[in-house]
Amino acid sequence: MAGGYNGKLLWVNLSDGSLSTEELSELFCRRYLGGAGFVSYYLLKEVKRGIDPLGPDNKLIFALGPVTGAALPGSGRNCIGAKSPLTGGFAKAEVGGFWGAELKRAGYDAIIVEGKAERPVYLRIHDGEASLHDAGHLWGKSPKEAQNSLRAELGDERIRVAAIGIGGENQVRYACIANDLRNFAGRGGLGAVMGSKNLKAIAVRGHKMPAVAQPEKLKEYRTWLLENITLMEGFRKYGTGGAMERFEANGNLPIHNFRDGVFPDAKLISARTIKDTIRTGMEGCFACPVRCKKVIEFTEPYPVDPDYGGPEYETLAALGSNCGVGDLKALAKANELCSAYTLDTISVGGTIAFAMECFEKGLLTTGDTDGIELKFGNVDAMLEMIDRIARRKGIGELLAQGTARMAQEIGGGSQAFAMGVKGLEAGMHEPRLKAGLGLGFALHPSGADHCGAMHDELFSAEGRDLERMKSLGILEPVPADDLGPRKVSLLRYIQQGRSIGDSLVLCSFFPYDYQQVAGIISAVTGWNTGVVEMMTTGRRILTLARLFNTREGFTASDDRLPARFFSPKTGGALSKSAIDPEKLEKAKHYYYLLMGWDRETGVPLPETLEELDIPWAVEEARA
Amino acid sequence: MAGGYNGKLLWVNLSDGSLSTEELSELFCRRYLGGAGFVSYYLLKEVKRGIDPLGPDNKLIFALGPVTGAALPGSGRNCIGAKSPLTGGFAKAEVGGFWGAELKRAGYDAIIVEGKAERPVYLRIHDGEASLHDAGHLWGKSPKEAQNSLRAELGDERIRVAAIGIGGENQVRYACIANDLRNFAGRGGLGAVMGSKNLKAIAVRGHKMPAVAQPEKLKEYRTWLLENITLMEGFRKYGTGGAMERFEANGNLPIHNFRDGVFPDAKLISARTIKDTIRTGMEGCFACPVRCKKVIEFTEPYPVDPDYGGPEYETLAALGSNCGVGDLKALAKANELCSAYTLDTISVGGTIAFAMECFEKGLLTTGDTDGIELKFGNVDAMLEMIDRIARRKGIGELLAQGTARMAQEIGGGSQAFAMGVKGLEAGMHEPRLKAGLGLGFALHPSGADHCGAMHDELFSAEGRDLERMKSLGILEPVPADDLGPRKVSLLRYIQQGRSIGDSLVLCSFFPYDYQQVAGIISAVTGWNTGVVEMMTTGRRILTLARLFNTREGFTASDDRLPARFFSPKTGGALSKSAIDPEKLEKAKHYYYLLMGWDRETGVPLPETLEELDIPWAVEEARA
Repeated sequence: MAGGYNGKLLWVNLSDGSLSTEELSELFCRRYLGGAGFVSYYLLKEVKRGIDPLGPDNKLIFALGPVTGAALPGSGRNCIGAKSPLTGGFAKAEVGGFWGAELKRAGYDAIIVEGKAERPVYLRIHDGEASLHDAGHLWGKSPKEAQNSLRAELGDERIRVAAIGIGGENQVRYACIANDLRNFAGRGGLGAVMGSKNLKAIAVRGHKMPAVAQPEKLKEYRTWLLENITLMEGFRKYGTGGAMERFEANGNLPIHNFRDGVFPDAKLISARTIKDTIRTGMEGCFACPVRCKKVIEFTEPYPVDPDYGGPEYETLAALGSNCGVGDLKALAKANELCSAYTLDTISVGGTIAFAMECFEKGLLTTGDTDGIELKFGNVDAMLEMIDRIARRKGIGELLAQGTARMAQEIGGGSQAFAMGVKGLEAGMHEPRLKAGLGLGFALHPSGADHCGAMHDELFSAEGRDLERMKSLGILEPVPADDLGPRKVSLLRYIQQGRSIGDSLVLCSFFPYDYQQVAGIISAVTGWNTGVVEMMTTGRRILTLARLFNTREGFTASDDRLPARFFSPKTGGALSKSAIDPEKLEKAKHYYYLLMGWDRETGVPLPETLEELDIPWAVEEARA
Repeated sequence: MAGGYNGKLLWVNLSDGSLSTEELSELFCRRYLGGAGFVSYYLLKEVKRGIDPLGPDNKLIFALGPVTGAALPGSGRNCIGAKSPLTGGFAKAEVGGFWGAELKRAGYDAIIVEGKAERPVYLRIHDGEASLHDAGHLWGKSPKEAQNSLRAELGDERIRVAAIGIGGENQVRYACIANDLRNFAGRGGLGAVMGSKNLKAIAVRGHKMPAVAQPEKLKEYRTWLLENITLMEGFRKYGTGGAMERFEANGNLPIHNFRDGVFPDAKLISARTIKDTIRTGMEGCFACPVRCKKVIEFTEPYPVDPDYGGPEYETLAALGSNCGVGDLKALAKANELCSAYTLDTISVGGTIAFAMECFEKGLLTTGDTDGIELKFGNVDAMLEMIDRIARRKGIGELLAQGTARMAQEIGGGSQAFAMGVKGLEAGMHEPRLKAGLGLGFALHPSGADHCGAMHDELFSAEGRDLERMKSLGILEPVPADDLGPRKVSLLRYIQQGRSIGDSLVLCSFFPYDYQQVAGIISAVTGWNTGVVEMMTTGRRILTLARLFNTREGFTASDDRLPARFFSPKTGGALSKSAIDPEKLEKAKHYYYLLMGWDRETGVPLPETLEELDIPWAVEEARA
């Protein structure tokens, strides 16, 4: 069947208020797919070297993908990208909810926001019509207030809103963007970029169902998922965070800034405990029957607004165990605050934990912390920090810069335990348990992002993931702590495959294998595609992101882990486990080779760019 | 569905007459697949460095694959391999007919023949029982006489026979092995190896249908083929060689030892002319509805035995246009002679054409040629040469060594037009028209084998092959004369994909795309496999073959084309086209990189061997 799949891009210039649309050809869409692929393309193509991420020359890209808005679970998502104010390099994040599907129905596949508005504005998109409007009355408000206000004044309760809170307005370097209040494009400071442009929100409403080339075939994948929904039983029952105790036991749980191995309160902050205590229900994203998102409610000792949802695993770990906090209600409150302020909870938790360790080591004193006893386990201090970060008040001004800049300012050897890569605070999983995850942290273009990483233990024993691995030609289990060539090969496939998921844009929790994902692409677009094309497209996308970072001055030496991961944890299951830095280096260079990047420098080879149908990038990389 | 697919190997030691069987595990079968994969594995593992290809230390490997004997067109085939007496390196060839399917039904998936029998023997396999028998009465006979004799004395007209004629017995370096009289494992001198072992024939009979994991799914692929049989209309109508005139016009047809571009008699030797003149019918292989094999018959000026079938394109070109011969009946006779003697028609044609050019240049004289006027177009000389080669009589002794050894002996700059690679005479297609074919000739482990090569023009315009290419992520046509990175990437996929076809062992004429082939593997074995695994397995197989050659002393400098391809043809469509040797070198080294071989030397990297699950090969390569 012929495809005919194509796309439509909305250009928004906030400096002069102009709006225009551009048709995206089928070839373009097949080459860059959507979501993360579009972001990688446009960041390299449109954002010039060395620009200020928080200045008008940065561009904020919202991108949907082929499955967005289709009748398939996990298809309400979108990807957002920009040059990161946190890392100075490539940043992208995916976000769930309903906004993505609504934008597709409104007739667009991507938005590029350029320039900077003189005064706060919001962008409205309604059935193919786009317009900019004053948002002075929304500035300083939470996403919830902004959304309610927009729905009321536009007279449509079904408008979907992507917005920032004061964290974004104040350009906290790790501010995020909220879809539908409860879903966040978290990593890399995209909310700060949105704030720097004086763009408060994008309000979307559409009524056109997206075309699907082979609806019957697509239905088969939906049906398969429904028939195999038990594969997602844990998510349905608890959402993320149900494995908290297991993670504490096996060493995966970050504790006290990734330092320690024992946290007896793990059970108290588990999603199982949430279910038994503060949870009032579960909610889902567009078209998804899984409903993995917690709804919580309580009023004592402080009220928590149920509209912001409950904390995910990453939040529970980052602000909980990693800060030594075992107070579940405080974590729920922290989650609400970060949501209302649009702050990335992983970076918030990472910077607070880092500050706590600095405080305990005497590198920060009460003189620096506005008098606050910033110790691990200090619940009130943790909550107070969130507020100060969002407002960049007192010590919050320091923390709002992220751990990498903090370590530079604080000095005293603190870089060794500034737990991030390229300036992005690490996701809440443990490289000393999962070596491939560590390699992924080191190599991910955004920094230590767990979303593009692997969970090695899934490939070390029989199971669905091992079967998926076999379909790549890696036929026997690969030990979790292995960093040999099979692990490297597996990681690149996982990263490439994840790049495709992030381009479709499809939720990463679904248990589709690679053949099924290729089948889904085929069903939606009509292309006779397969997993090799998927992997090639993934390599193209990762190579574009790599070129972006290379152009910004990143080198192989930036593909490194903080020194802490090279020593064991204090206590617990990993008290004798550490990453071997030499093996990591060797693995890194083999990864370069497999990607077609210079084996020594990690710079994509000109031949690779030609091979990947992106010869234009040769010049762009030199620009 | 669980797989459970596995295999059974028969070890035959001709030196001591011992026979034994070995079970091949499912993991082994998945890793090396069968056919070409088994050959690559066992040649590296079992044949020691530097042994005489025609001595008892060489091993002759017959291997079936997962689809062999299944109810699927093209599944009657098998692969045969050994160290080549022609190239001194890796040799394998696939062969059609019925013998492969019969061996599968007899309960075996592979045979390894070791040592050397004191006197001529044949191997009999009957429903899982193997035995060696005296073949003194068959020695000196044609495959037809041998087959008839065996069927009569064993009292079973349905016995299938693989056998050699006197070319194999006399160890002509490019003797081949015949299945069912009409199908040949042609390239590399496997028949000479069989002859050197005093093994005349393998007679097989079996009654056990091979198991298929998902018969209904397999049936879908058979049905698809039957429903799309028009895709093979040319083959059904003419067999190979129907495009002879087109090939002459576009320059693909080798003429006068690849020297010239015009051959007005092309029409006379076309399969279209065969259909209109000497053809009496068409025949097919096991389970195949296409029936692409010509049956011919005539009695004047000499009788031709219809049991040997009619000439294929490669034969018509090698002994026809390439020797300047436009006499169709002479070519049919030449084909019969080569069949009865079991000589590879491509190498026969290549050596005769080379000798003719040497003769015309005065590098050979009638003093060398037993008085024969060995000029291009001399029909009688061509026929006479075949006889002398098979008997190694007079000038035939020289020609029986192949062009590479001839050029060494003859000297006088003749190497520049000794049209082979690594000593294997080139298949009858033109690198100056199809640059990727040239690159494939240079890189194929067997030498200038057209079977593992590509036909570039298929990927330079819209059509099924371009669609197949797109499914690999190469989205736009690649010009036929291009040698850039996209072409290199395409070639390696084609070579890897062909390695899978040769391992299954599945006929290469079927228009299945890669997804379908993966589906066929899955249907037969029950493995949840896909095209990435196929390509990885293909890379594993090619890497094993590469290591075999490396161990035998081949280096990157052996991956080269004869100098003639760097200059245009005399006259015709390619009178201004040539391969650019610098571009070829660059492409070669990028190919190494994509394969995970050292980019400079072409030696597989130790990391690649680990990645490909063949760490044992690290040691083996050093042995």
